[in-house]
Amino acid sequence: MARVGIYGGSGYTGQELLRLLSRHPGVEVTALTSRKYRGQRINQIYPGLMGIAGQTFMDASPEEVAALCEIVFLAVPHGEAMASAPVFLDRGVKVIDLSADFRLRRVDIYEKWYQKHTASPLISRAVYGLPELYREAIVPADLVANPGCYPTSVILGLAPLLREGKIRLDSIIVDSKSGTSGAGRDPQLGSLFCEVNEGFKAYKVAAHRHTPEIEQELSALAGQDVRVSFVPHLIPVNRGILSTIYGTLDGSLAASELHDIYRKFYEKEYFVRVCEAGTFPNISSVRGSNFCDIGLAVEEKTGRVIIVSVIDNLIKGAAGQAIQNMNLLLGLPETTALDLVPLFP
Amino acid sequence: MARVGIYGGSGYTGQELLRLLSRHPGVEVTALTSRKYRGQRINQIYPGLMGIAGQTFMDASPEEVAALCEIVFLAVPHGEAMASAPVFLDRGVKVIDLSADFRLRRVDIYEKWYQKHTASPLISRAVYGLPELYREAIVPADLVANPGCYPTSVILGLAPLLREGKIRLDSIIVDSKSGTSGAGRDPQLGSLFCEVNEGFKAYKVAAHRHTPEIEQELSALAGQDVRVSFVPHLIPVNRGILSTIYGTLDGSLAASELHDIYRKFYEKEYFVRVCEAGTFPNISSVRGSNFCDIGLAVEEKTGRVIIVSVIDNLIKGAAGQAIQNMNLLLGLPETTALDLVPLFP
Amino acid sequence: MARVGIYGGSGYTGQELLRLLSRHPGVEVTALTSRKYRGQRINQIYPGLMGIAGQTFMDASPEEVAALCEIVFLAVPHGEAMASAPVFLDRGVKVIDLSADFRLRRVDIYEKWYQKHTASPLISRAVYGLPELYREAIVPADLVANPGCYPTSVILGLAPLLREGKIRLDSIIVDSKSGTSGAGRDPQLGSLFCEVNEGFKAYKVAAHRHTPEIEQELSALAGQDVRVSFVPHLIPVNRGILSTIYGTLDGSLAASELHDIYRKFYEKEYFVRVCEAGTFPNISSVRGSNFCDIGLAVEEKTGRVIIVSVIDNLIKGAAGQAIQNMNLLLGLPETTALDLVPLFP
Amino acid sequence: MARVGIYGGSGYTGQELLRLLSRHPGVEVTALTSRKYRGQRINQIYPGLMGIAGQTFMDASPEEVAALCEIVFLAVPHGEAMASAPVFLDRGVKVIDLSADFRLRRVDIYEKWYQKHTASPLISRAVYGLPELYREAIVPADLVANPGCYPTSVILGLAPLLREGKIRLDSIIVDSKSGTSGAGRDPQLGSLFCEVNEGFKAYKVAAHRHTPEIEQELSALAGQDVRVSFVPHLIPVNRGILSTIYGTLDGSLAASELHDIYRKFYEKEYFVRVCEAGTFPNISSVRGSNFCDIGLAVEEKTGRVIIVSVIDNLIKGAAGQAIQNMNLLLGLPETTALDLVPLFP
Repeated sequence: MARVGIYGGSGYTGQELLRLLSRHPGVEVTALTSRKYRGQRINQIYPGLMGIAGQTFMDASPEEVAALCEIVFLAVPHGEAMASAPVFLDRGVKVIDLSADFRLRRVDIYEKWYQKHTASPLISRAVYGLPELYREAIVPADLVANPGCYPTSVILGLAPLLREGKIRLDSIIVDSKSGTSGAGRDPQLGSLFCEVNEGFKAYKVAAHRHTPEIEQELSALAGQDVRVSFVPHLIPVNRGILSTIYGTLDGSLAASELHDIYRKFYEKEYFVRVCEAGTFPNISSVRGSNFCDIGLAVEEKTGRVIIVSVIDNLIKGAAGQAIQNMNLLLGLPETTALDLVPLFP
Repeated sequence: MARVGIYGGSGYTGQELLRLLSRHPGVEVTALTSRKYRGQRINQIYPGLMGIAGQTFMDASPEEVAALCEIVFLAVPHGEAMASAPVFLDRGVKVIDLSADFRLRRVDIYEKWYQKHTASPLISRAVYGLPELYREAIVPADLVANPGCYPTSVILGLAPLLREGKIRLDSIIVDSKSGTSGAGRDPQLGSLFCEVNEGFKAYKVAAHRHTPEIEQELSALAGQDVRVSFVPHLIPVNRGILSTIYGTLDGSLAASELHDIYRKFYEKEYFVRVCEAGTFPNISSVRGSNFCDIGLAVEEKTGRVIIVSVIDNLIKGAAGQAIQNMNLLLGLPETTALDLVPLFP
Repeated sequence: MARVGIYGGSGYTGQELLRLLSRHPGVEVTALTSRKYRGQRINQIYPGLMGIAGQTFMDASPEEVAALCEIVFLAVPHGEAMASAPVFLDRGVKVIDLSADFRLRRVDIYEKWYQKHTASPLISRAVYGLPELYREAIVPADLVANPGCYPTSVILGLAPLLREGKIRLDSIIVDSKSGTSGAGRDPQLGSLFCEVNEGFKAYKVAAHRHTPEIEQELSALAGQDVRVSFVPHLIPVNRGILSTIYGTLDGSLAASELHDIYRKFYEKEYFVRVCEAGTFPNISSVRGSNFCDIGLAVEEKTGRVIIVSVIDNLIKGAAGQAIQNMNLLLGLPETTALDLVPLFP
Repeated sequence: MARVGIYGGSGYTGQELLRLLSRHPGVEVTALTSRKYRGQRINQIYPGLMGIAGQTFMDASPEEVAALCEIVFLAVPHGEAMASAPVFLDRGVKVIDLSADFRLRRVDIYEKWYQKHTASPLISRAVYGLPELYREAIVPADLVANPGCYPTSVILGLAPLLREGKIRLDSIIVDSKSGTSGAGRDPQLGSLFCEVNEGFKAYKVAAHRHTPEIEQELSALAGQDVRVSFVPHLIPVNRGILSTIYGTLDGSLAASELHDIYRKFYEKEYFVRVCEAGTFPNISSVRGSNFCDIGLAVEEKTGRVIIVSVIDNLIKGAAGQAIQNMNLLLGLPETTALDLVPLFP
């Protein structure tokens, strides 16, 4: 049984990690921290975990947590992650960071979108934790930068086309929509029920921090610089991201060829499901699971391809993908504790 | 008091017409039809109207209804509207058609997307009922084709830019999201609560019937052929449409210039509200009102403009706009019975 | 035009007052306060009010506000209301208090459930502002205690039966359910979208502060002490309260007799609608309106009566009722600005 | 591997059975029927099951299905279940019936609330499938009547008190609230998104068919006739039932004693969780799980006890409980495939 810690475990992502790890046969959660809920049991804060997980929140330092585990999930905000990661790594604890701190390979870009980076030497040591693209690099890593939720949906949605070089790189538009759990559990006006329910809005229009992360990974896939327009929206649901992606084909491509490219690219990937031709995914088809479902269309009239990609933002977009990475680090089957059946309705 | 009829009044649009007309000082609803609910009072079907509207649904022919009113709203499905419109017009009753039957000026396009047109000579007599663009033509008309819900949000969102010729006509992408009342009140699987709630999906991807209507009107504004990519999505809310519109600027344009163009274009339009620079509208800000709110951004990196346009699909996207047209036909102030304050939260 | 002030106008109730008053022909809102949003326009905080209401929030003292109006709505939390009410009254400004500070006639009971009362001499001067029961006392009053939302639904639901003495006073159970706007706009964990959506819970079981208010008014109706069991629940909707009320009949009563009692009791009340026999109200039938709808059943097997009563908690349960009281104070028709048609769907 | 069939598998309950059984290590679903979707794969109807379950719907007779399995779940409407059950039993196939056909022990009561019973001799052979109360009788049974969703929440909520004889039997009032999946997947007006969303209503007030089932089981627990008032309501959520139960104590009982009674009664029951004193359950704490959570209060003022009981109506209220029964029939651990962690948020 590997001993794992969750550093910053009181938010939705922390809870989701614990929820999923509670059914993992190969690990034991030996440390769980929260300043706010120190001394309380997790099932007092998340009563659904009654009888399932009973860890008590500690207000412990990274040093203390490092002594209790072999792998740690950082579920703290950006800034805090870069402060604690070196402590864990120095003590031989492998780190899976769910914040943005080690996702961007260029310090200048990180600092433009986020803040001063205080652990920049570690950036080159970090592996971008999208197993479908970086599996081999993840296995031996000790610092995994777990991808953002929006980027996961977008990168998986575009990877086959970019690898095949079938799309004009200056034509990509990403119109994403996310459920509200993506905003976290901090009480803030914009996350109140009455503000979100029966509403729908775009936010951070062409200014969301996931933009450079998306561009970095699309550029890596394309082998050259890619810039995208990215507009996120807020859906009045708890979970789910749907990204509608538009791009102009470089040359013509039949719908069936497009389909074949995706089927082939993902044929060995358990967690990516390519929809049947002519069908498109609903976020409700992946809720509670680690799947990414992708639907495809070619619009002949305009020469564009339209890709619809969905994930559960808390699972494939956060905690599930983190556990997928953990399984790789531990040499376990990648689907361990992640062969989750979507909950519908 | 003008006598008005509602032909096909049992759906959400019919109810909305009656709801709004019940507070209109210049008209009286003298006929209301429904085959299904014949003999029942509208407030038995819509109990919220108890004490407000008590008309009994008739199962009456167009001829019978024509004898009871001066203006009629057709709130029946396409196909049925073209069958009854000639009857009303022949008897001197002005027609405001909420179906798609008279929106498309070219019969071949109508027949490609809908069905055989049996009243095609009337098409040229119809005026497209978007008052902000066609006010002068509407006033003397006797057949008004009330615009579709998605097209209303898109056309108002793009009109100023197209009139000014500031956008590349082959670059327009429209990513729209609609509340569920747009699907009507017919019991069908896809409209069930459990299918829609906690879900989000694209549907009729690049194949929605509102596409030719949008293209017709954008082409008219541009003075040449415009083709767009149009993908609608279903939001789990009752009311509201939000369209996120992307286009590449023809030349450069500062955000403030863009803003000025819109402010100026709409400065005399009560029902179009241009958001303050840097802010974007939420569907919850127009719920229950006849407003269209528009937010604007210029993305310098890509040279694109991003426009977000919202309406209440049952009001500015259907019944409210129809009453706006009726007010024009009757020579009444356009805002009569439509100076509605949005309901929030 | 009467000049009215809203003291504490940034919450949902304050916004609702302004929303409704913006269409009131007899008053003008001349003062609007908020410490938090001082200097901002209300339509920046509530963008739905763009073009409708443009008052700027002041951070003004009661003295300053008193100089600007003849009537003031107190939309501040309990405790703050009792601190400012005397200032207004001393300056001849009539007060409609939406907090709980002047609802309870007995200081000891107020202090048991709330806090120390610092303006207790005013309690006897206050009139309980439920126009259907206290209209004549409200007209000449200068301090109106606007009822709580739950109590409004319960008292209107039980008044006819209690007045007629048809129910055993120790048998009353009130199971109420409220939409989330009742919790206000302060960011707190329990009001977050993800906490409320797809959830349903009882809260403050048999311990809600509206209990003594309900008991006070039911006792007044019955002419003797009434104790009730009261359990509120939270519904994942924005607006609406539904109270299901159970009581044992004192003697037998046919369903039709029960119906007649209610019809008669409320026959002159515009805002109370008694549902047809065998039908029960939905909160969606009163949304956006000042109506209270009541459905009735007699269960012969157990000798119980079951009453279902619904209101929009922000209108008949708060701002609408406050304006109804204001109309009475001003000698205006009670329905002025309140002849609202419910918004459905 | 036991071979199991699902007779009538296209509704939400059928899907839920398949969803849960897809992860059951001891059974294989060898037959799945649906007239409507004959020839289609279940993952075409429920795309969330893509890659998880690929059975094709058969339009097969009970005889044909009986040849393919050892145990069958009847997920057809009442009436149809009683028609097919004898066929299965005659062929040695054990039956778990999710309809109401074999729940009521008295034919006259069944026929009063439902319809003519055509397989009444089988009623005495059926065991009421609530394992927490009837485990020993279920193990050797060949016909299990799976309880209704509301009754499950109510019976588990009241069993300890009734067994202990602590409550006045004529005082019980049950105010229940259910999510919309309880209404099934048939397209009907009342289940449409726009009719349910932002709404809340009571329905079948004191007239719901689950009343006699509740009364039968409460009477069995009490050892004498019990009559209850039962009012169900519809919550705008997909899943979940919350029952608020009121009763007058026979003698006095401290809150801690009440708690002890429940803790003791359920101490060996994995699926029943008694909440900590002073806390009450939310349906969101059991979503996606087979748990029943119970909260308790004593109201001294009135001498009443208030019990709040929640389940996921599709799991503990239907498919999960059916699988719990199947596990008993197969001699497997009762929690097999049912150790589900609630999905939150």
